[in-house]
Amino acid sequence: MTKVGIIGASGYTGAELIRLLVNHKKVEVTYVTSETHKGKQVSQLYPNLASITELKFESFNVEQAKKKADVLFVALPHGKPMKIIPKLLAKNKKIIDLSGDFRLQSKAEYKKWYGKNHMATNLLGEAVYGLPEVNRASIKKASFITNPGCYPTSVLLALAPVLKEKLIFTQDIIVDSLSGVTGVGRTPSSEVHFCTMAENISSYKVGGVHQHIPEMEQEMRKIAEEEVKISFTPHLAPFLRGIYSTIYADLKEKKDKSEFNTTELLEIYKEFYRNEPFVKILKEGSYPEAKAVAGSNYCHIGLEVDQRCERVIVVSAIDNLVKGASGQAIQNMNLMCGFKETEGLEQVALFP
Amino acid sequence: MTKVGIIGASGYTGAELIRLLVNHKKVEVTYVTSETHKGKQVSQLYPNLASITELKFESFNVEQAKKKADVLFVALPHGKPMKIIPKLLAKNKKIIDLSGDFRLQSKAEYKKWYGKNHMATNLLGEAVYGLPEVNRASIKKASFITNPGCYPTSVLLALAPVLKEKLIFTQDIIVDSLSGVTGVGRTPSSEVHFCTMAENISSYKVGGVHQHIPEMEQEMRKIAEEEVKISFTPHLAPFLRGIYSTIYADLKEKKDKSEFNTTELLEIYKEFYRNEPFVKILKEGSYPEAKAVAGSNYCHIGLEVDQRCERVIVVSAIDNLVKGASGQAIQNMNLMCGFKETEGLEQVALFP
Amino acid sequence: MTKVGIIGASGYTGAELIRLLVNHKKVEVTYVTSETHKGKQVSQLYPNLASITELKFESFNVEQAKKKADVLFVALPHGKPMKIIPKLLAKNKKIIDLSGDFRLQSKAEYKKWYGKNHMATNLLGEAVYGLPEVNRASIKKASFITNPGCYPTSVLLALAPVLKEKLIFTQDIIVDSLSGVTGVGRTPSSEVHFCTMAENISSYKVGGVHQHIPEMEQEMRKIAEEEVKISFTPHLAPFLRGIYSTIYADLKEKKDKSEFNTTELLEIYKEFYRNEPFVKILKEGSYPEAKAVAGSNYCHIGLEVDQRCERVIVVSAIDNLVKGASGQAIQNMNLMCGFKETEGLEQVALFP
Amino acid sequence: MTKVGIIGASGYTGAELIRLLVNHKKVEVTYVTSETHKGKQVSQLYPNLASITELKFESFNVEQAKKKADVLFVALPHGKPMKIIPKLLAKNKKIIDLSGDFRLQSKAEYKKWYGKNHMATNLLGEAVYGLPEVNRASIKKASFITNPGCYPTSVLLALAPVLKEKLIFTQDIIVDSLSGVTGVGRTPSSEVHFCTMAENISSYKVGGVHQHIPEMEQEMRKIAEEEVKISFTPHLAPFLRGIYSTIYADLKEKKDKSEFNTTELLEIYKEFYRNEPFVKILKEGSYPEAKAVAGSNYCHIGLEVDQRCERVIVVSAIDNLVKGASGQAIQNMNLMCGFKETEGLEQVALFP
Repeated sequence: MTKVGIIGASGYTGAELIRLLVNHKKVEVTYVTSETHKGKQVSQLYPNLASITELKFESFNVEQAKKKADVLFVALPHGKPMKIIPKLLAKNKKIIDLSGDFRLQSKAEYKKWYGKNHMATNLLGEAVYGLPEVNRASIKKASFITNPGCYPTSVLLALAPVLKEKLIFTQDIIVDSLSGVTGVGRTPSSEVHFCTMAENISSYKVGGVHQHIPEMEQEMRKIAEEEVKISFTPHLAPFLRGIYSTIYADLKEKKDKSEFNTTELLEIYKEFYRNEPFVKILKEGSYPEAKAVAGSNYCHIGLEVDQRCERVIVVSAIDNLVKGASGQAIQNMNLMCGFKETEGLEQVALFP
Repeated sequence: MTKVGIIGASGYTGAELIRLLVNHKKVEVTYVTSETHKGKQVSQLYPNLASITELKFESFNVEQAKKKADVLFVALPHGKPMKIIPKLLAKNKKIIDLSGDFRLQSKAEYKKWYGKNHMATNLLGEAVYGLPEVNRASIKKASFITNPGCYPTSVLLALAPVLKEKLIFTQDIIVDSLSGVTGVGRTPSSEVHFCTMAENISSYKVGGVHQHIPEMEQEMRKIAEEEVKISFTPHLAPFLRGIYSTIYADLKEKKDKSEFNTTELLEIYKEFYRNEPFVKILKEGSYPEAKAVAGSNYCHIGLEVDQRCERVIVVSAIDNLVKGASGQAIQNMNLMCGFKETEGLEQVALFP
Repeated sequence: MTKVGIIGASGYTGAELIRLLVNHKKVEVTYVTSETHKGKQVSQLYPNLASITELKFESFNVEQAKKKADVLFVALPHGKPMKIIPKLLAKNKKIIDLSGDFRLQSKAEYKKWYGKNHMATNLLGEAVYGLPEVNRASIKKASFITNPGCYPTSVLLALAPVLKEKLIFTQDIIVDSLSGVTGVGRTPSSEVHFCTMAENISSYKVGGVHQHIPEMEQEMRKIAEEEVKISFTPHLAPFLRGIYSTIYADLKEKKDKSEFNTTELLEIYKEFYRNEPFVKILKEGSYPEAKAVAGSNYCHIGLEVDQRCERVIVVSAIDNLVKGASGQAIQNMNLMCGFKETEGLEQVALFP
Repeated sequence: MTKVGIIGASGYTGAELIRLLVNHKKVEVTYVTSETHKGKQVSQLYPNLASITELKFESFNVEQAKKKADVLFVALPHGKPMKIIPKLLAKNKKIIDLSGDFRLQSKAEYKKWYGKNHMATNLLGEAVYGLPEVNRASIKKASFITNPGCYPTSVLLALAPVLKEKLIFTQDIIVDSLSGVTGVGRTPSSEVHFCTMAENISSYKVGGVHQHIPEMEQEMRKIAEEEVKISFTPHLAPFLRGIYSTIYADLKEKKDKSEFNTTELLEIYKEFYRNEPFVKILKEGSYPEAKAVAGSNYCHIGLEVDQRCERVIVVSAIDNLVKGASGQAIQNMNLMCGFKETEGLEQVALFP
């Protein structure tokens, strides 16, 4: 069994890693850290894990981490991983960082969008962007993965086929996304109080200021091989799990000057994702539902051409904690370690 | 007391009219109809009205309607009002139709978007579009009001200032809207089953096919005095009440070639709605929350300029059953009858 | 206009007092205090009050309170009111305390159930227990009201008729109650995180240790004129507003040795509450729904006799923030001040 | 691979069987029936199963059922299984009936509580009651299982230790239970409309008339070896999955005339369930949460002694669709077929 450590395991993505890994056939979780909750059993915070695991949170320590685990998931808040990952990188260790610290390859962009100086600039660009559907070959060879953000995962999977095939104009893309409340994290606040969010919907970082924007543009640029500009508005919606993105892009004409229709685009998508285990293109007239992927590593995608406006509307849904974070991290680990890509990720979403 | 009838009173908008009108100082509900539930007390369907009203549903009858009421709200499904309103129109009766039957002024457009022939084409264009913030003067003189759709109310209020001031390009507007489940109506179906919608989010009529599109374009055209084209995607979200619209529009330059910023646009909005009792422009950095207007007749509007994309993002929230339907209908009645515009509509939203 | 102050106005019951009082015809809110939020507009915390009120939170000060208001609602956490109410009591001031500080009449009981010494023992027993349906005459003459707890209100109203008529055994009463999450209050914590409570149900203070137990027993004893003992289990349920109590009591035989049936008991209840504006006895076969009273001051009661077990099951529903707290406090104020008892409390519950 | 058929597979318990069995290592689902949806893909009704299974609903046919499957789950509504199960019983077939048709062993009781005559009285008492924690040995040898009801599962597991040990009085047990809305089933109705149940709580079959009462009393009687009488009130709560039962029972004295305390009872429970894979006794001071078992086959149990009332309060939580139906059915199949008891049931509950 490969030994796995989770650094920053008391947050939702940490707990989700544990939930998924306890049934993974090839690994064993041997080290989980939390400074706030050290000494407590994991199941004191996550009662679903009662009688599933006896793991206890420990305080983080570089030497212990290296000693106790072969693969390390770093599930700390932005800003912290760049302080410890340089110390953890070593021959034969595999590191998957779930934060945003190593996603942007430019230190100027990092400064601009994250509002602080990067403290490990020599590692910028070293980590492979862990979106298997786009970068599978690189991931297999990597020892350091920067796991994609939840919004970027939902958007990149939704647009990769038309970007790759150069079917849309890339300067006017509009992305409107909803996140379930787990996306905000475990720390209590007025914003995530049940009495604030139940029966509510709210918006934040309106006006093109969310730090996932440069990440999306950077990765879309690589796929499209041209500059990309997006407007992105995130909302908080009253459900637990899910990133639900509606994306508007102006369609180019076909070579024969006619326009693409929904059926043709769906074919292109199905072909693009033909062998993907976790991406499902819905049939014409069907659109994603957040709950149909909740708890699972799937991404569901539907689309429709608005003929009046010569625009395609693509809708995608993922579970922010699974395909948008911990599930995708495990998918990356599976690829890095040579396990079956779907190992530990076969769980079907709960519906109803 | 003015006598009020509600035709089609067993649906959610009918019940909401009753809820609001029982505390209205100037009117008395004297006639409520339902073919399905005739003979039943209203409170058998709506337990919140137990001990509030003894009203019983009656079968609809043209003569009874004329005899028992001075003002008639028609809360029937699309397609039915056009069959009975011609018979109800008579001197000294005031009619407010909450359906879509008389919103479009072109019979061709009606046929195209509603999928059937209009049966009272002579009345098309006769009804005043009951959006008080735009058409108050005409409403005061009207005897036949077509009450705006829920989505159009949220979008027209959100864009009226920039349309009127000609600050945006009108061919590329994108509207992404969420509706609470009450928007679907009272009829049970798999789509509105608790077990379908709880923890879920879904999309419908994707691709520019919703019948509110021509209504929005028609009314926006009147305000902007130029053609308007919008992409509109409606979603169903897991809360009871609310229309929550996020609108993207490309900004024109100012006369001096510089660009508008958020502060300037907010000032234009505040000025535009300065005397409006039910429209609230939120202060910079604040955005609407659906629950902050639930149960009330308010519309909350916030906005932000995305400087990178030279685009404004306007967010608006209303309660679909109140400002989006029954509350606005009462506001229209108040104007038509010379009552205080806010009479019966002072209820504050529940929060939390 | 009578001037009203709210001490501790930033919590949910304080905000609910403001929501209800802005439409009260006889009073004006002139003074709202919060130490944490002093200087902020109320609408910064409660966006439903945007454009409804310009009130700002002030720091509490005894002299200001006396000067600025004729009626004072004290909506502070348990333990604080007993420190300030002695200073506020003065001729011509009316005080309504929404905390538990003055509900128990015995200092020993206070110590036992609240876990601290009472600091104003001379006032114990001075406040009138503000349950209008039981103590209306005393309330009218009172200047100091201790407002009932949310659970006790739901339980006392549900049992008063059978206690008064001595129809049940009073040593074996079992009360199982659900509270909406607003009952926990506004302070963020892991317990009230949306991600904890959505799709969940939990229990707390199991085993007969909730401080509302002695309050219920004390007031039930007065009605029944005999000792009462109850088992009480509170649960937290995933809705915003509501106390929903299911109560089991063993029925005595009728004088003729036969047993009461459901119809007979319902008649007794209807007679008991015949003139009550806010208590509704549902018809046979109907049981309360929490949402049918949410936002309103109503209490709905339904019951059924379990013939096999010679036991009555009474179910009652109130909105914890309205009839269970702020609405009842206003009802008490209305009685104390000679206003119409229902003034400001006519709002109909939202359903759906 | 053992071949499995699901008769009546379009309802929630049928779909849940499919969800769980697609990852079962020893069986293959080969036959799923639905008269209403025959010809449709399962994933048209259950979008979580898109790309998981290509199964299509077929019309039920006795010969097909026998031919295509070795194990048959019958997930039809009450009243239908008793018509077809006699035809399906045959050597080498294993049948697990999830309905109530064969749970009561007396035809008089069936008539009384289900309101109709039993049509296969010769089979009454033939089926083994499939509660593994109580009847494991018999289940292993059985070919015909009647799967317990959801409420009975939650109550029997909660009381088995004190019934077995004869620690409570059995004539005054009170059970107050909440069910998630999935418990009502997939058929749309006003009762399960999102707009009815969101933010709501309701009661049904109040007064001791639910058909699970005789089932609970029958099975408790077997464990306790004495007559049992319970008051049972079911409520519908606004969450998807879960049966959450709070049970009140009067405690007998210990042999030494002293009373049991919480710690002692918890020890008895832990001992009783020491080797059970799916029953978890929570530590003192902790009580079950519905969400901690949602999606899993676990039952969580907590308890507390109310010393004032000499009564124990036991709280239990299960997922009504898993341990309360389909998961337990699979657990029974595993026992009948000699598979590992936990096979296919290792899924951890989602939390948050």
